[in-house]
Amino acid sequence: MKRTPQKNLMVFSGRAHPELATEIGDLLGSGLVPQSAYAFANGELYVRFEESVRGCDAFVIQSHTAPINEWLMEHLIMVDALKRASAKRITVVMPFYGYSRQDKKHRGREPISARLVADLFKTAGADRLITVDLHADQIQGFFDGPVDHLMALPILADYVKEKYGAKQLAVVSPDAGRIKVAERWSARLGGAPLAFIHKTRRIDRPNEVAANRVVGDVEGRICVLTDDMIDTGGTIVKAAEACMEAGAAGVVIAATHAILSDPAVDRLKNSPAVEVIVTNTLPIDADKQFDNLTTLSIAPLISRAIREVFEDGSVTSMFEGHA
Amino acid sequence: MKRTPQKNLMVFSGRAHPELATEIGDLLGSGLVPQSAYAFANGELYVRFEESVRGCDAFVIQSHTAPINEWLMEHLIMVDALKRASAKRITVVMPFYGYSRQDKKHRGREPISARLVADLFKTAGADRLITVDLHADQIQGFFDGPVDHLMALPILADYVKEKYGAKQLAVVSPDAGRIKVAERWSARLGGAPLAFIHKTRRIDRPNEVAANRVVGDVEGRICVLTDDMIDTGGTIVKAAEACMEAGAAGVVIAATHAILSDPAVDRLKNSPAVEVIVTNTLPIDADKQFDNLTTLSIAPLISRAIREVFEDGSVTSMFEGHA
Amino acid sequence: MKRTPQKNLMVFSGRAHPELATEIGDLLGSGLVPQSAYAFANGELYVRFEESVRGCDAFVIQSHTAPINEWLMEHLIMVDALKRASAKRITVVMPFYGYSRQDKKHRGREPISARLVADLFKTAGADRLITVDLHADQIQGFFDGPVDHLMALPILADYVKEKYGAKQLAVVSPDAGRIKVAERWSARLGGAPLAFIHKTRRIDRPNEVAANRVVGDVEGRICVLTDDMIDTGGTIVKAAEACMEAGAAGVVIAATHAILSDPAVDRLKNSPAVEVIVTNTLPIDADKQFDNLTTLSIAPLISRAIREVFEDGSVTSMFEGHA
Amino acid sequence: MKRTPQKNLMVFSGRAHPELATEIGDLLGSGLVPQSAYAFANGELYVRFEESVRGCDAFVIQSHTAPINEWLMEHLIMVDALKRASAKRITVVMPFYGYSRQDKKHRGREPISARLVADLFKTAGADRLITVDLHADQIQGFFDGPVDHLMALPILADYVKEKYGAKQLAVVSPDAGRIKVAERWSARLGGAPLAFIHKTRRIDRPNEVAANRVVGDVEGRICVLTDDMIDTGGTIVKAAEACMEAGAAGVVIAATHAILSDPAVDRLKNSPAVEVIVTNTLPIDADKQFDNLTTLSIAPLISRAIREVFEDGSVTSMFEGHA
Amino acid sequence: MKRTPQKNLMVFSGRAHPELATEIGDLLGSGLVPQSAYAFANGELYVRFEESVRGCDAFVIQSHTAPINEWLMEHLIMVDALKRASAKRITVVMPFYGYSRQDKKHRGREPISARLVADLFKTAGADRLITVDLHADQIQGFFDGPVDHLMALPILADYVKEKYGAKQLAVVSPDAGRIKVAERWSARLGGAPLAFIHKTRRIDRPNEVAANRVVGDVEGRICVLTDDMIDTGGTIVKAAEACMEAGAAGVVIAATHAILSDPAVDRLKNSPAVEVIVTNTLPIDADKQFDNLTTLSIAPLISRAIREVFEDGSVTSMFEGHA
Amino acid sequence: MKRTPQKNLMVFSGRAHPELATEIGDLLGSGLVPQSAYAFANGELYVRFEESVRGCDAFVIQSHTAPINEWLMEHLIMVDALKRASAKRITVVMPFYGYSRQDKKHRGREPISARLVADLFKTAGADRLITVDLHADQIQGFFDGPVDHLMALPILADYVKEKYGAKQLAVVSPDAGRIKVAERWSARLGGAPLAFIHKTRRIDRPNEVAANRVVGDVEGRICVLTDDMIDTGGTIVKAAEACMEAGAAGVVIAATHAILSDPAVDRLKNSPAVEVIVTNTLPIDADKQFDNLTTLSIAPLISRAIREVFEDGSVTSMFEGHA
Repeated sequence: MKRTPQKNLMVFSGRAHPELATEIGDLLGSGLVPQSAYAFANGELYVRFEESVRGCDAFVIQSHTAPINEWLMEHLIMVDALKRASAKRITVVMPFYGYSRQDKKHRGREPISARLVADLFKTAGADRLITVDLHADQIQGFFDGPVDHLMALPILADYVKEKYGAKQLAVVSPDAGRIKVAERWSARLGGAPLAFIHKTRRIDRPNEVAANRVVGDVEGRICVLTDDMIDTGGTIVKAAEACMEAGAAGVVIAATHAILSDPAVDRLKNSPAVEVIVTNTLPIDADKQFDNLTTLSIAPLISRAIREVFEDGSVTSMFEGHA
Repeated sequence: MKRTPQKNLMVFSGRAHPELATEIGDLLGSGLVPQSAYAFANGELYVRFEESVRGCDAFVIQSHTAPINEWLMEHLIMVDALKRASAKRITVVMPFYGYSRQDKKHRGREPISARLVADLFKTAGADRLITVDLHADQIQGFFDGPVDHLMALPILADYVKEKYGAKQLAVVSPDAGRIKVAERWSARLGGAPLAFIHKTRRIDRPNEVAANRVVGDVEGRICVLTDDMIDTGGTIVKAAEACMEAGAAGVVIAATHAILSDPAVDRLKNSPAVEVIVTNTLPIDADKQFDNLTTLSIAPLISRAIREVFEDGSVTSMFEGHA
Repeated sequence: MKRTPQKNLMVFSGRAHPELATEIGDLLGSGLVPQSAYAFANGELYVRFEESVRGCDAFVIQSHTAPINEWLMEHLIMVDALKRASAKRITVVMPFYGYSRQDKKHRGREPISARLVADLFKTAGADRLITVDLHADQIQGFFDGPVDHLMALPILADYVKEKYGAKQLAVVSPDAGRIKVAERWSARLGGAPLAFIHKTRRIDRPNEVAANRVVGDVEGRICVLTDDMIDTGGTIVKAAEACMEAGAAGVVIAATHAILSDPAVDRLKNSPAVEVIVTNTLPIDADKQFDNLTTLSIAPLISRAIREVFEDGSVTSMFEGHA
Repeated sequence: MKRTPQKNLMVFSGRAHPELATEIGDLLGSGLVPQSAYAFANGELYVRFEESVRGCDAFVIQSHTAPINEWLMEHLIMVDALKRASAKRITVVMPFYGYSRQDKKHRGREPISARLVADLFKTAGADRLITVDLHADQIQGFFDGPVDHLMALPILADYVKEKYGAKQLAVVSPDAGRIKVAERWSARLGGAPLAFIHKTRRIDRPNEVAANRVVGDVEGRICVLTDDMIDTGGTIVKAAEACMEAGAAGVVIAATHAILSDPAVDRLKNSPAVEVIVTNTLPIDADKQFDNLTTLSIAPLISRAIREVFEDGSVTSMFEGHA
Repeated sequence: MKRTPQKNLMVFSGRAHPELATEIGDLLGSGLVPQSAYAFANGELYVRFEESVRGCDAFVIQSHTAPINEWLMEHLIMVDALKRASAKRITVVMPFYGYSRQDKKHRGREPISARLVADLFKTAGADRLITVDLHADQIQGFFDGPVDHLMALPILADYVKEKYGAKQLAVVSPDAGRIKVAERWSARLGGAPLAFIHKTRRIDRPNEVAANRVVGDVEGRICVLTDDMIDTGGTIVKAAEACMEAGAAGVVIAATHAILSDPAVDRLKNSPAVEVIVTNTLPIDADKQFDNLTTLSIAPLISRAIREVFEDGSVTSMFEGHA
Repeated sequence: MKRTPQKNLMVFSGRAHPELATEIGDLLGSGLVPQSAYAFANGELYVRFEESVRGCDAFVIQSHTAPINEWLMEHLIMVDALKRASAKRITVVMPFYGYSRQDKKHRGREPISARLVADLFKTAGADRLITVDLHADQIQGFFDGPVDHLMALPILADYVKEKYGAKQLAVVSPDAGRIKVAERWSARLGGAPLAFIHKTRRIDRPNEVAANRVVGDVEGRICVLTDDMIDTGGTIVKAAEACMEAGAAGVVIAATHAILSDPAVDRLKNSPAVEVIVTNTLPIDADKQFDNLTTLSIAPLISRAIREVFEDGSVTSMFEGHA
């Protein structure tokens, strides 16, 4: 008794950021699989899928936004339910990888929560991961299986290029340690010069930041400040101020993950940045919107990656020529 | 180079229910290991122990109360930190086992979250579990390792016996399916007669509960209504009313886990129960306290179990003669 | 070098209950894969398949009947041989799940053999399980993978409906703890009233069963007594007698698994039951047949489930509208 | 809270061969841990230990004799119960390793049952194995953990030396492939000459054994025929006859494992062997005893190995100078 | 969103023996996937594939020749890269299985490196193995998954048959323990008589080889000496000399794996063998070539096995009728 | 049968760097466990320990120097042998962690060899790791268990302080990404000012390094250039030259791991550095010694860490107060 198998793409979404998942489902033409999901009175979560998922190629999307442990647990429970319901392959899609900053022991007796998260998904039944702009590339190695690591740079940089490309630009890294990302931006922006913020130390008290000093020539240029995430916004806003003090013609901030914890919005509003450009890997509540905030959708990138994975294409090729 | 090893008991507590953990640490004479634990702005949790834990026999206590996913994740992160800090053995102490009600697929495409929880702790590094009054005994089999399953019955029943023992008692199960627990109560209360609440069905509509009917003789007796947990309180309060309608002289409610989700407190306050007796496996906020609520401490039971585990004694013997 | 893969269904059978497996193979149209299987002089078992099984979707059927450890081991060895012979996916089909009653520690220092059995199959190479009417639904959670849990209820209940539907029926559960299954029966039988057997306790000696008392109205009705299995038959025959004493017009016994250990047959023959209806999940030897025993085949149910699994259909949908 | 740990040796025995286990327990001075063990009516096995085993160093003895699958399953269930009851370390003692002859795929689509057995014990919770005279040394590599592989040779050979040492001896291997064991015997017997049985093939039909021919000089000598096990006895009895035909003064048969499946006893009784010497790794029923059968106890060897393992001594040193 | 999947065969080769891999790729018509592979200055290896491998059925060929640890590590790294790059299935092809001779503990405190190698490949991500003529068949059981064990016998024996078939042949095993392989040769050569080399022991010093004696009639025949591998060549050359002394008309040596460590080439050149026939499972450097050495390609065998695996055919059937 | 266990420290060494291991063994007072270790003719490695290791707390030291795959494999084989010989706990000591630079996928279809190495040791049987100055701290998260990550900074910095402390110093990082390590150096050197080398990019060709520019004031100061390793020496020598060009009074180079691949020695000899200070985590051959090279021993640090691990002390505390 023989038959030719059919691969069946199904997209699932947790409740953290339904807009993003819906957009991805629409772009793929598959829509989202309907499900019941709610919390019991004591906070325990419940999930059930309304359609048979047997044999499907499942992509399970959840944004690890606050309350992050809630959404992480929902994500794990969805994977467990898919495993037990005989999904053929389960790909966890985490546009922002929760706990990615706890990727090492900074001191003794700390957890390495980013590794723990990878192991929890493996245990629940995940076969593979798709994620965007990890805090450290080494986190790919925390998961025992394939990880497709997407970059938001083409989306962000092309927007900047189109809007500000006619002006004199400089790419500025807010931290000496992240200058390699800035180099990729520079390449994408046709060779804009690089600069970075150097946190100078006082000779007598080397553990204290004396000042943020711009290294590189930004005078008269529009500075494109780039980072992987904006959490409370302190570092990047200080960097923006340093650029202006160094004679920049203006500052544009670009970052992939808009965590925007308090008081990020206030800081950004009051910063010299003329525009803050982020993606929607995380949901941005209405009360966090402000005039200069531009949100670009990550959905086309993720949906294309899902399609490549489903069709055994190449995710790497999506970024060729971009580095 | 030889030496005689020393076993070193260390007790750790998450932030869900510090009063219980402190009491356990005091009873053991070990106190709690000091630690830093807090949430970052976006909800990610951080834990670090302030003392060396190398080679210790670690007992990690967390009550799985609301917000349950928060505390579950903190519990897992603590276990991860202990594993990486070279604890010799890690025992997870969960006075209430979170997600224990999702212990099977009631319908297709559901998760079995209670098994998932067991696997998550195994993955994080747990060697063994201690827990109290599981919703179903089969959950012991979800963990691949030793599970010490404690019973609160001696604590609750001895309190009832001392206070109400002089009166005519009856032990009443609020559900036909839990009559075996009631039998243990009866034995502990010197042979009090048993009864239970029968949810009668209408002959024409068998899926509908027509009435709660007491099966067994409760007339003129103080009914001791027993269950494993009180969540929203609906079932047990209806059972109390049925007892009174059946001529009971009074009702005392006894349950191990006081989840007390809304509107449990209102229901219990307005119920005919003269006393509601619970343990502190879960914290009970000040606004959930009410006059007739009596909370007995589970700490002596748990601390004794920890001591038996540490000293290679017998946990089973703690309950001998009680069933 | 590319090609379109073919899925190939192959059905394998241990030697415990070849009639059932043959019937399943016939219904599927696949037949059974020929094999050599025998025991060496010292009891060691040997199995070898006579055809290439490379890349197949294997379903391995074995009934866990006495001598149960023999057949369990043969089942495991078959799975090992399939794994090493490159079967693509291995589904273990256990119409009756051996050791399912040892699903928890009733007392200290007991095994949880039902979990052990799940782990043994996982170790041997099983990817998934198909089974019928587990003793406790929680056992689904013992296996780390998909479990398709089939219900014999439609088969049994439809037979009863057709034969006895014109009469006044009552559905009776032999144990208070199993009333939920009786509710499903009631629904399937068009709303027949429910009753159950209450083992009354003596007030002075609560651990002693004083009498089996019928709760619910059975007078003048044909009582359909339902349970998951009949082992030595003691409980169910006592229940039948209680029904008759309560004025029932007759008793029909229906159970999924006919273990029929001694002295079940004698007890059933001499019971008031006019008919004992079981399925053939377990083989029933000729010397265990008796006049009033009716055996319905489970093969159509299992073969349909195998087909749904093979074709990525829905097993859940087979039972929709039946609960 | 600190304490100095105590290691506690506990010996457990399945029901296959209680005499051997009792002897081992007596030699160790520990006795056997009392337990309940029986089969339910349908053959399912039940085991429970009567004493606390928490923290013990457990040695679990079972002889894999017929009905072998019964005893194998009991062995696994005992390990499961020990794991769940918090034994600190579990050593499986299998004097005869069941299924050790199925140690490779002789043809396609066969199991490798000896590897399966190793994995089943690992899954159940075994930390280490102790076994005697494996059919192939490679089986040690099937278990993922320490295996103490004991040799019965000193016991058997010293007996032979004492009884027959004054005579002219020859050590004869019944199979060309086992000559290395015979060499160890020869060394132990003070340099007795070696011989072996060569199964000559007919030139025209090479797959057919034409005759058993003795290679080596046995004339006028007492031949000590050695093998790892005697199952149905065909090979070794033919070898004995060949020795006699070659002019041997007599034949003594020595083997570790006395499986003695039918018709081994008849064959041995009617063979030219003046004595058949075996150990009690497997029980020998009363009806299998015969005049020339001598059974030496393996208990001193196993109990010494257990003691070395318990006391972190050296098992290897037990056999030094013996090879 | 559905689609019919395509299986895609891709063949990868490490740098140990590119000629063999190229030949296999050519025979399959797939060629080899281009890759970058080199060593850093400190010896660390680097591998990267130049084409997308997503979803492919990967066969990764590496010959475990000297420097064996270099090539083993490269093999493992290639498997890791394929796993992380989303290959669907990874089959490790090791024409010669490195460390296969360390397949047991000959003495205490030795590793079992052959099991370690199996586990390392499993850990790296291997799903299955293909290998040729293992040193011991039991090694198949070291890998937890399917192992296709190919035999070079048909290739070697057919060559011998064609070239020497007209003469009087005898098949000679250089070791009593390997006579079963010689039997298969005999069958393939139309029933040539068997012989083997018996290492005779001195009666007074049984651990010392006194002489190599031929057992069986080789007089006037061409002796075909067969073994699995030739390492330093000592054993097989002594065997050849023994054959000549026993009156053989000539000697032909045939072995699968030509390790040819020093001083194998010198020994073989100076041996009485008229021809030494090996396969190219291992590369043979130009300076190891000599006049009488004939190398037959194993590529047709391996490429056919790969094709059978890819197409879910039967590898076993490749050897049917070959004894 | 009870006894008080003894912990027994045993130190094992591979053959890569016996001087370091000997020094560690001497400092611990334990010496090294004698062993046989050699390579077979075809490069396969063999290891055997000469003493019983049963129950010991094993520390297995190997330096991952060239030929690195050879020593890595020897390291793995030693761990396997210890596991099978019943060592109680196995700690892998790798002063330099091989393949630590391949800690992420720089491009698609690369391996993550540093994760692979962690998994290989886990599979072989390693319980924990001790290592020094990892290339990226995240690598700690690659191993599923405790990792003690030691820092050579106190050893190197105290030497510098004593020798050059009287002069005006500056701490210089050769790479913007490593400035945090330089900060720790500055703290240790009493607050010496920081600088780093900025690889300036050309505005028109941003991927090209135009020049190495010193950021920070080094004029008239002795520059302490610090890095984790010196491989071919290109980066650090260019940095030294840049310091001199910026007016430095002198340059001292300090690095933990002296890989010193060609042409590192020539470059360093001809560099402006007055002294190159390294540790002996890796062996430095006689032909790599040069006048200005100072090698400090890492043995006191590692032996103290081993002692803390053995005695359940604190490794973290070894670095407290060291920034």
